[in-house]
Amino acid sequence: MPSYTAPTKDIQYILHDVLDIAGTDVPGYGDLEPGFTAAVLDEAGKIAAEVLAPLNPVGDRLGCRMENGVVYTPPGFKQAFAQMKAGGWPGIDMPEEFGGQGMPYVMGTAVGEFFSSANQAFTMYQGLTHGAASTIFAHGTDDQKATYLHKMVACEWTGTMNLTEPHCGTDLGLMRTRAEPQADGSYKVTGQKIFISAGEHDLAENIIHLVLAKIPGGPEGIKGVSLFIVPKVLVKADGSLGARNGVSCGKIEDKMGIHGNATCVMNYDGATGYLLGEPHKGMRAMFTMMNEARLGVGMQGLAQAEIAFQNARAYARDRLQGRDVTGVKNPDGPADPLIVHPDIRRNLMEQKSFTEGARAFLLWGATLIDAAHRKGDKDADGLVSLLTPVIKGFVTDKGYDMTVQAQQIYGGHGYIEEWGMSQYTRDARIAMIYEGANGVQALDLVGRKLAQDGGKHIMAFFDLVKGFCKDNADTDGMDGFVEPLKRASRDLQTAAMYFLSEAGKNPNAALAGSYDFMHLFGHVCLGLMWGRMARASRDALAHGTDDPVFHQTKLATARFYMSRQLPMTATHLARIQSGADPVMALEAANF
Amino acid sequence: MPSYTAPTKDIQYILHDVLDIAGTDVPGYGDLEPGFTAAVLDEAGKIAAEVLAPLNPVGDRLGCRMENGVVYTPPGFKQAFAQMKAGGWPGIDMPEEFGGQGMPYVMGTAVGEFFSSANQAFTMYQGLTHGAASTIFAHGTDDQKATYLHKMVACEWTGTMNLTEPHCGTDLGLMRTRAEPQADGSYKVTGQKIFISAGEHDLAENIIHLVLAKIPGGPEGIKGVSLFIVPKVLVKADGSLGARNGVSCGKIEDKMGIHGNATCVMNYDGATGYLLGEPHKGMRAMFTMMNEARLGVGMQGLAQAEIAFQNARAYARDRLQGRDVTGVKNPDGPADPLIVHPDIRRNLMEQKSFTEGARAFLLWGATLIDAAHRKGDKDADGLVSLLTPVIKGFVTDKGYDMTVQAQQIYGGHGYIEEWGMSQYTRDARIAMIYEGANGVQALDLVGRKLAQDGGKHIMAFFDLVKGFCKDNADTDGMDGFVEPLKRASRDLQTAAMYFLSEAGKNPNAALAGSYDFMHLFGHVCLGLMWGRMARASRDALAHGTDDPVFHQTKLATARFYMSRQLPMTATHLARIQSGADPVMALEAANF
Repeated sequence: MPSYTAPTKDIQYILHDVLDIAGTDVPGYGDLEPGFTAAVLDEAGKIAAEVLAPLNPVGDRLGCRMENGVVYTPPGFKQAFAQMKAGGWPGIDMPEEFGGQGMPYVMGTAVGEFFSSANQAFTMYQGLTHGAASTIFAHGTDDQKATYLHKMVACEWTGTMNLTEPHCGTDLGLMRTRAEPQADGSYKVTGQKIFISAGEHDLAENIIHLVLAKIPGGPEGIKGVSLFIVPKVLVKADGSLGARNGVSCGKIEDKMGIHGNATCVMNYDGATGYLLGEPHKGMRAMFTMMNEARLGVGMQGLAQAEIAFQNARAYARDRLQGRDVTGVKNPDGPADPLIVHPDIRRNLMEQKSFTEGARAFLLWGATLIDAAHRKGDKDADGLVSLLTPVIKGFVTDKGYDMTVQAQQIYGGHGYIEEWGMSQYTRDARIAMIYEGANGVQALDLVGRKLAQDGGKHIMAFFDLVKGFCKDNADTDGMDGFVEPLKRASRDLQTAAMYFLSEAGKNPNAALAGSYDFMHLFGHVCLGLMWGRMARASRDALAHGTDDPVFHQTKLATARFYMSRQLPMTATHLARIQSGADPVMALEAANF
Repeated sequence: MPSYTAPTKDIQYILHDVLDIAGTDVPGYGDLEPGFTAAVLDEAGKIAAEVLAPLNPVGDRLGCRMENGVVYTPPGFKQAFAQMKAGGWPGIDMPEEFGGQGMPYVMGTAVGEFFSSANQAFTMYQGLTHGAASTIFAHGTDDQKATYLHKMVACEWTGTMNLTEPHCGTDLGLMRTRAEPQADGSYKVTGQKIFISAGEHDLAENIIHLVLAKIPGGPEGIKGVSLFIVPKVLVKADGSLGARNGVSCGKIEDKMGIHGNATCVMNYDGATGYLLGEPHKGMRAMFTMMNEARLGVGMQGLAQAEIAFQNARAYARDRLQGRDVTGVKNPDGPADPLIVHPDIRRNLMEQKSFTEGARAFLLWGATLIDAAHRKGDKDADGLVSLLTPVIKGFVTDKGYDMTVQAQQIYGGHGYIEEWGMSQYTRDARIAMIYEGANGVQALDLVGRKLAQDGGKHIMAFFDLVKGFCKDNADTDGMDGFVEPLKRASRDLQTAAMYFLSEAGKNPNAALAGSYDFMHLFGHVCLGLMWGRMARASRDALAHGTDDPVFHQTKLATARFYMSRQLPMTATHLARIQSGADPVMALEAANF
C-alpha cells in the first residue's frame, strides 16, 4: 500500500532557513514564527496522511458516479470533507471578515502541497472553491460578498470555474454561451460548458458556478465575454436556499486520472446568473486570480512528484534485487536492496533534487504573491507574473516526469494498480493541461511576460541571480554552486537576447523556442533555489547546527542538481538558437 | 474516434531507398522486391486498420475478465484472432517446415509495427507465441519441435514466457519455482509466476508455457535455473489434446494499460513439464531470443508513438483555435487550425522526427538480425547485440514521451478517455518496463555490451558513423547533416572513453552514467539514420523522382532532428562526465 508523510521539516527549512519569512516586512509574516508554522504544518500533515491519503486509491478505483442527475463522490469523501471544514483548512488563507483564518498565501501553499499529495482529486473540491471565492472577493459587490463568501470560505458551498466549451478551450473568444439581461438586473445564462472540475457532487448543499458568457450585442470575440455568478440553488434575500436553478450536470467525463473529482459537462438552460465585475470584462476578472491558480497547479505537479518519490524511495530501500558491484551490502540477505545500484540512485536523486528545488521555488513564488497583495509591492507582482508560467509549465512537466521515474523504480509492480504508482502519474498528467496547457504557458511567457513593462521583470530576475553569484563568489564552500548557476543564467540571457534580436524580423523565431525557453528558465530558477539552499545549509554547518546530516544532505543534493540537471540549459539554448526554420519548414499537409 | 493508417510508404522507403534490402546478399532478401514487400505491407496495413484498430478501445474499456477460472478476452478478439491466423500473419517470419511463411525477420518487424500500433494488447498474444515458438525452435528436441511448432506457428496454440516471481524480477537467481525430476524423464513444476502476459485466455485450445524453474540439487542462484515446456493441456503421443495440466491462472492483474491482454498470476502445482535445452542452462536458452524480443518491445514503443502522432496531427489540422501571429491562415473560419502555431509544430516535428528515425533504426536492427541468423554474419550479430539495449531502452522511453506529447496537442480532450489518446500513453508505459526494465538495459549496455569482444562492436559502430561522414563530407547538400552527426558521435566516443578510463578505478563512474549513455547512444543512432535518409532523399531528388515533396519533407525533418534533437548529446555527456560522486554521495538513509 502506498504511504505518505508530509515533508514538514523541509518546508520549515525553506520558510525559515532559506526565505527567512518571519524576518521580512510583509504584513502578517511577523506572526509566522517557526513554532507557529510548525504547529500549522504538523496539523495539516496529520490530516493529509491520516484522512486524505487513505481515500486516494479509493477515489481512483471507485470514482464518481451519476444517478438520476445526482452526482455521488467516492465513499468516505463526505466525511473527510466535513473534517477538513471542521479544521478550517479551506479558509486558511482567506480573509477573517468572511470566516477565514487570514494567514498569508504562503501558508495556504505549504499545506496545499500536503493535501494535494495525499489526494489531489479530493483537494480540488476546495481548491476550486478557493479560486471562485477569491474572484468574488476581488470583483464582487458588497452584496455578492455578503451573500456568498462566508459560505464559500467555510466550504459549506463550493465553487467552480466555467470557461471551456466543446469547440473552444484556449481560444475563449469563440465562446457561445450567452447571457440575456433581465428586467431585474439578473441574466439568463444558456449554453454548455465542459471539463468543469467539481461541477456537481454531494459534498455541499450549494455550488456557486462562475461562468463566462457573452451578453448579446457586446463586442466580438474575447472582448465581449463577461463573468457571472450562477448558483446551483438560488439564494433568497435572507440567505437561505430557494429554488433549484436551471443548471444541471449532463455527464461525468471518463478520465485518465483524478477519478475522485467529478469533471462535468454542465448545461445552462436559462439559468439565473448575476454579473460579477463589469460587463465584457470577464476575462480580466477571471485572470485576476490567474497567478494564484497557476501557482496552485504547479504545486500539484510538485505534490504528485513528492508522494511518488516517497514511495519509490521506500521501495528502493526494501526490495532486494541484485548485488552492489563494489561489494555486497546486505550479506545476510539473498540480495542487496535496489538503492545500492547507481542507476536507481541516479533516478532517486533526480526526483529528490527536483521536489526539494521545486518546493523552494513554489514557496518563494507564494511569498512574492503575498508581497504583492499584502504590501502592494509592484516589483514582486511583476516578478511573480513573469515566473508564473514557469512555475506552472516547468513544475508540472517535470513533476509528471518524476512520477513516471518513480513508477519505474517498481518495475512491473509500478504498472499494476495495486501498488498505487500508476495513479500518481495518471493524476499528475492533468496538471500539464488545465489552467492553461503548458504550451500556452510558454506562449504567455515569451509572447507577453518577457517584454512586460519594458522587460523590467526579466532584468530584475537576472539581477537577482547576479546578486546571488556576487554575494557568494568568495564565500568558502560556495564555489561549486556559483559557477554552474552563472553559466545557466548566461544561457537564459543569451536566449532572451536571441528572441529580442530575432523576434522583430520573425515572431516565430521566438515562439518556436518558447517551450525550450520555459524549461531553460525553470532550470535556472531551480538552480537559484539550490544555490540559496546550499548557502543556508553551508551557513548552518558553519555556525553550528544540531542536525548536520540534514544540511550535508542538502549540500549533496544541491551538487547533484548543479552537475546533473543544470547542464540541460545548454541544450535548450542550442534548440532555441536553431530558430524558426527547422520548426516551420513543412506545409501543414506534409507532416 | 481515433484512427490509424499503416505507414506503408515510409517502410517501403526505408527498406528500399535507404537500406536497399533487395540488393544485399542476406539469404531470402533477394525476394524482397519493392512490389512484393508493398503487397505484404498493404495487406498487413489493411487488417491492422480495419480489424485490429477498431478493437483497441474496446479492449481498453472492457479488458479481460475471469469467471470460474476461465479467462475471457474482450468482445471481438476471438474473431480478429481467427482472421489473423487465416491470413498467416503470426507465422510470417517462421520456418516453412513448421507452416510459417519463411520471410525474413525484417518483414515480421515491419508488419509487427502495424499490428502493435493498431492494438498492442491484442498483438501481444501472437507476439508471446512467436517468442516461445522461436525458443523451442532454437533449443527443442526434434520431438518437441514436432509436437508444438506447427500448432504454435499457426497460433492454434499460443505461448507464454514465465520468468518473474513475486519477490524477483530482474534478479532471477532468487527464483523459488522448482522442478522435480520424474521417472519418465518429465518434471513436476511447482511455484508461482507473476506478470505472465497472455497467461490464460480463450483464443486458443492450448497454451504452451515456457517456465523457468530450479531442479533441486543444482547450482545456486542464476546458474541453477532450467527452462521447461509446461502445456496448459497435455499433448498425447498422437498430437491430440489430453488431460488438463496442473497449471492455473490465480488472477488477472489490474493494470495501467494493455487491458486487452490478460496479465496473469500463474500457479504451477506439480504441473508436468519437459526440460527445454540443457539442465541449468535455462537463462541461456531464454536469452537466445532476447535480441529479437527486445527489438520487438522497442518496436512497440515506436508503434504507440506512431498512432498517437497520426491522431495528434489530424487533430492539429482540424481543431480551430487562435490565429497565426504572422497572419490569418483560415480567414473564412472563426480561427486558424492548431497546426499554424509554432509550439504545436515544434511538438509535432519532435514526434515526426522521432517516429520516422526510430522506424529506420528498428528496421536496420532487424536486417542485422537477419544477417546474423541467415548468413551467420558474426559482426552483424555483435553489432545488433550492442544496439539491442539502445533500441529497447531509448525507443521505448522516447516513444512513451511522444505519446504524452501527442496527448498534449488535444488539451483537455487528451485527458478524457473518449478520444483515445490516454490509452496510447497508458499502453506505451509498459514497454519501458517489461523484457528488462530500461535501467537494466542501460546496465547491460554499459556493463556488458560495450566491452564485449574487446570493444570490437562499439568500434565497428564508430567506424560506421565515421564512414558515413567521410562518404558524405563533400557531397553537395549533405553539409547540414554531417557536422551535427560528427559532433554527436564525438560526444559518444568521449563518454565511452570516460567510462574506460574511470571504470577501472570505480565501476560506479560508468554505472552512474549508464542511463545517459543509453540515451546519448540512441540519439547518435537516430542521427545516423537521419543522415542516411537525408542522403537517400537527396539522391532521389538529384536523380529525379516523381514524388519530390516526400523527399523534401524527409530532408526538412532530418534537419529538424539534427538541429533540435541531436544537441541533447552534449547534456548527456556533461552528466556522464560529472561522474559517480553526485549520484552516490548520500547514505541510503538520507535520501
